[in-house]
Amino acid sequence: MTKLVILGAGNVATHLFRAFFAAENCVVVQVYNRSEKSLKAFSEKTSTTTSLKNLEEADIYLICAKDDAVEYLAQEIPYKNKLVAHTSGSLPLLDVSKNNGVFYPLQTFSKEVPVDFSEIPICLEASDENSLKLLQSLAKKISKKTYRISTEQRKALHLAAVFACNFTNHLYAIAEEICTENKVSFEILHALITETARKACLASPQGIQTGPAVRNDIKTIKRHLKQLENSNFKEIYTLLTESIQKKNATKL
Amino acid sequence: MTKLVILGAGNVATHLFRAFFAAENCVVVQVYNRSEKSLKAFSEKTSTTTSLKNLEEADIYLICAKDDAVEYLAQEIPYKNKLVAHTSGSLPLLDVSKNNGVFYPLQTFSKEVPVDFSEIPICLEASDENSLKLLQSLAKKISKKTYRISTEQRKALHLAAVFACNFTNHLYAIAEEICTENKVSFEILHALITETARKACLASPQGIQTGPAVRNDIKTIKRHLKQLENSNFKEIYTLLTESIQKKNATKL
Repeated sequence: MTKLVILGAGNVATHLFRAFFAAENCVVVQVYNRSEKSLKAFSEKTSTTTSLKNLEEADIYLICAKDDAVEYLAQEIPYKNKLVAHTSGSLPLLDVSKNNGVFYPLQTFSKEVPVDFSEIPICLEASDENSLKLLQSLAKKISKKTYRISTEQRKALHLAAVFACNFTNHLYAIAEEICTENKVSFEILHALITETARKACLASPQGIQTGPAVRNDIKTIKRHLKQLENSNFKEIYTLLTESIQKKNATKL
Repeated sequence: MTKLVILGAGNVATHLFRAFFAAENCVVVQVYNRSEKSLKAFSEKTSTTTSLKNLEEADIYLICAKDDAVEYLAQEIPYKNKLVAHTSGSLPLLDVSKNNGVFYPLQTFSKEVPVDFSEIPICLEASDENSLKLLQSLAKKISKKTYRISTEQRKALHLAAVFACNFTNHLYAIAEEICTENKVSFEILHALITETARKACLASPQGIQTGPAVRNDIKTIKRHLKQLENSNFKEIYTLLTESIQKKNATKL
């Protein structure tokens, strides 16, 4: 039975706690958070604390905190030779000599939206082989997809995720605004959004680019730019159209 | 039994043909295309022709051609008082006085990727109530989702779709390139892409924006810009970050 302490009570901590709670052969013995308020959601199911001095003994300390706080929290853990891992997409291994690692679930989490953790890739890195094995065994309790990833690769994934998730969601938000302004339901675009994502997971997105930019359909591009009143959206339309054309230059 | 002739043999024609072929109470009696080659895929299942003079008589002529060709094809149909509809997202009703309409399936089609047509929204518009009823009845044979949409609304949807589909796919392609350059599998991002799309269909994308831009996490933004070597991707990162910050100004 692997004993875990989770440090943090945000989105990642919440979803990891739920996943470990449902998993076999591991138990979250305690959740730490600086403020009491966010601990409420955990206190019915496990022990909680706002004091680092009161941390319980466990096999693994999982730090699910903001990047700035991770190193400090790691140093304050009052047990030596225990495995300490953080869940950040950008930070390197911890600044301690051994027994530390990274346990980075690559997903977008909102507290209120349940996720199927078994499909979430968990990117692992560790200071030594034993720590890696322990993290692998922990990851496999909740996910079918575990990857050994270097710090550099993880940083690249984190950056790529901004394009594939945060920026993509912003494009959805722009599409939503265009719909609202023209009194059509954004719901009509749902099937398109789902299918575009599905296709990107079946084939190389670069290979299946469609639309007026890649066809160099200048008439449509001009009409769309005329339609757009928001100068910011116009600029995005122009830049992304040019970028598609550059990236597909051999097809044009 | 509704008799249909399809004019065109591209992606939209191919998928509509498959859907009508599988549907009840309608039959595609003929597929027309200017060139013989693309008709091969249809010729085993229905009559085909490359000559507009040989078009068979039918209840509805469905023009699935490039925007530039639509008006010409409509004029060449040798039967009067038959319903003629096009499938374009951008064109207005046809330039004939009556019995014409629009049958616009809002989806991204690739010939080789099968789609479930029953979930695809079909946007309808017609010159008169009878034509609308006929198009509605036709649309319902293949889809659960039919919408009566004006030309202006359809143009807005077409523009919104460029953001939600074509531009989104380009962001996936950039993410893919970042992964490839750093020797990590793009597959690790699949779950994130799927989840981001799923969430956008559950809630307003504007309301669930995540990432360094909306958090105003300047450290991460600077580090990402430093990581990006491609000046084009740098520009896209900057513009989309600024746009997210403008659109969420009240949250920052």
